[in-house]
Amino acid sequence: MKDEADDTTSAPPAALHRVDGPADDPTGELVAIVPAGGAGTRLWPLSRRSRPKFLLDLVGSGRTLLQATVDRLLPLTGDGGVYVVTGVAHAEAVAGQLPELPVANLLAEPSPRDSMAAIALAAAVVEARLGPRVVASFAADHVVPDADRFRDCVRTAVLAARAGYVTTVGIEATGPSTAFGYIERGEELAAVPGAFGVRRFVEKPDAETAAGYLATGRYSWNAGMFVVRTDVLLGHLARLHPELAAGVREIAAAWDTAGRDDVLGRVWPTLERIAIDHAIAEPVAAQGGVAVVPGTFGWDDVGDVDALAGLLSAAGQDDAAAPVVLASSEPGASSGEPGDGAGAPIVVIDSPGALVAPGPDAPAIAVVGLPGVAVVRTGDAILVLSRDAAQDVKGVVDRLRELGRDDLV
Amino acid sequence: MKDEADDTTSAPPAALHRVDGPADDPTGELVAIVPAGGAGTRLWPLSRRSRPKFLLDLVGSGRTLLQATVDRLLPLTGDGGVYVVTGVAHAEAVAGQLPELPVANLLAEPSPRDSMAAIALAAAVVEARLGPRVVASFAADHVVPDADRFRDCVRTAVLAARAGYVTTVGIEATGPSTAFGYIERGEELAAVPGAFGVRRFVEKPDAETAAGYLATGRYSWNAGMFVVRTDVLLGHLARLHPELAAGVREIAAAWDTAGRDDVLGRVWPTLERIAIDHAIAEPVAAQGGVAVVPGTFGWDDVGDVDALAGLLSAAGQDDAAAPVVLASSEPGASSGEPGDGAGAPIVVIDSPGALVAPGPDAPAIAVVGLPGVAVVRTGDAILVLSRDAAQDVKGVVDRLRELGRDDLV
Repeated sequence: MKDEADDTTSAPPAALHRVDGPADDPTGELVAIVPAGGAGTRLWPLSRRSRPKFLLDLVGSGRTLLQATVDRLLPLTGDGGVYVVTGVAHAEAVAGQLPELPVANLLAEPSPRDSMAAIALAAAVVEARLGPRVVASFAADHVVPDADRFRDCVRTAVLAARAGYVTTVGIEATGPSTAFGYIERGEELAAVPGAFGVRRFVEKPDAETAAGYLATGRYSWNAGMFVVRTDVLLGHLARLHPELAAGVREIAAAWDTAGRDDVLGRVWPTLERIAIDHAIAEPVAAQGGVAVVPGTFGWDDVGDVDALAGLLSAAGQDDAAAPVVLASSEPGASSGEPGDGAGAPIVVIDSPGALVAPGPDAPAIAVVGLPGVAVVRTGDAILVLSRDAAQDVKGVVDRLRELGRDDLV
Repeated sequence: MKDEADDTTSAPPAALHRVDGPADDPTGELVAIVPAGGAGTRLWPLSRRSRPKFLLDLVGSGRTLLQATVDRLLPLTGDGGVYVVTGVAHAEAVAGQLPELPVANLLAEPSPRDSMAAIALAAAVVEARLGPRVVASFAADHVVPDADRFRDCVRTAVLAARAGYVTTVGIEATGPSTAFGYIERGEELAAVPGAFGVRRFVEKPDAETAAGYLATGRYSWNAGMFVVRTDVLLGHLARLHPELAAGVREIAAAWDTAGRDDVLGRVWPTLERIAIDHAIAEPVAAQGGVAVVPGTFGWDDVGDVDALAGLLSAAGQDDAAAPVVLASSEPGASSGEPGDGAGAPIVVIDSPGALVAPGPDAPAIAVVGLPGVAVVRTGDAILVLSRDAAQDVKGVVDRLRELGRDDLV
């Protein structure tokens, strides 16, 4: 075992198990994996444990983030090519939002075991059903305005994945953000133009470090997007976290049998909790086995209300001083148009950069003399905050927990 | 007529019709008049046309401003000595809030004709019923924390009123406010220690002028408080606005007869619309007929949300940085205590000087990173504003009217 593991450290295990698609479409047999987890605490009160961010239509597009993610991926995979992994608590809501998803493609985790277990399980189930495939994993709660350019990047990433790389799509940094981890790229791959070797992944930096990264021109943001062959992924996992790999293989083997629940109940709680970045991406990058395809397609992880306001403002409005109104954050919720005289009016005075999310059955909402304020209303809560303090919303959730008001978080 | 009018310009018509009370109580036969009008637009959404400021418990004392005003006056007048003048639209609500008020003491105006008509009508009805009396008029929607000192001032004012002066109670200015008119006093009256002649009334000044007023030590704020004999008041009115005086006399003569509604319907709409300040106080002051009793009793007209927050903050809280929570603005409304874990929680982070008025059946309310913000909620509206911009709330009401949403104003 040790010798085999050492063998893989020097170079990517390219073409050991070649996965071919149609010659004219490098994603011909691509399977997408969408881990749908995380509450989005900093988007309280829109997001809750019981109503996480991915189930919300945060940008008022008429599709939730999860639905938009699947919409964006289906042209790459074809029908039936998207798998969603989510917690049992949200399985019904996910199925309800994705009627086009085959029931067998919805994998419900009994409990959260972090991203490595979720993605590895899906990869193992896919491989057990279909044989080795290139899989591509994308979070369910990110926003990608330019889906065409996104898909072009993924197609390039699939070529690198076929060649044996754990391939990530790196987001071209538009500023020295301290909210994201960074990916340092090396040389362009000779065999896959547009894909680069990855030197290392780095955690969220301070502002000065981030500015230094940008100045080199070699860094992109890590959005947690991974494109990789199932056999390559599970091979690395077997080498680096053998018990975790064995566990997901055992569960996957039983998945489509009557023994699924038994095996899942016995093995799943024992699986190591670790993120795919730490389990695979970082160590394999150090060994030269990771590639990155840099891309610019307006990606945003909508991490807080300030990001949401910026996204909505950039998307729709000519007048930068005009308030941003989030029409609805829940499918089917009703709210008034600003100034239409019929629904609940929204009046904003002397408050450039204001965001108003009126919520369902909204009352009249007026904002006066507060530049950069966000007013976010749901049926049971009102949050009023400075967009500059958007990260501090976590303190509200903490305080509500202290007060014993878990019903509100 | 002209000669008579000229005669009165040289000196106050003192003691022409002396009104005596018990020797040991200068307010023995005082009658109080409480004009209850005005919507309080700048306190939207708490105050509305249909729910004006005086009907609200703005300070969370358990009594509305109207009730607190009557409570404050009854020790001066004795039972049955308070009259309230209000619009027909609010007569039922006023009667409901003041079960101790004799039905005959509630005077309903068919339409608003400004303060001179309202006060003169009440004075004329009082005189028709009781003969000449000293009457004292106080707005229904002001806050007076120190009622004992207030009543001491009024007792002194009654002495000056008996002597024939139109007497006002001037509020000792605590700062160069530009929100109030000012009263300039002259010499102390020899016969009434504590009362001074009034040189003039001045309209709301700019800040520089206000600071100059304060520096002289001769100016107090005009709170629209007037103490005067009915015969003196109606005499001045007959001289200065004879048609208005004749009109209210005619209505008052018919008030307690079957002909009231006919006369009211015919005469009231013809009465001149003018404020008592312009009709009586200013011209009579120019003629030497007005006195002022300066007083310090924490008066506030609660003109806007900033004033309300300041008042609540001064009244109850040791920690200046702690948020001010307005428990309830309507009798019977329920709302949560901050942090009690049972009602709706209020969480305020990094927002010193914040005011939160959660309103009835409140949701959770969180405020983050907004010093000096006010969040005012009612059943059908939410206002979020900088306390510095509290005067601009009028713009919201204007905009709602433009939108045809008179139901919200």
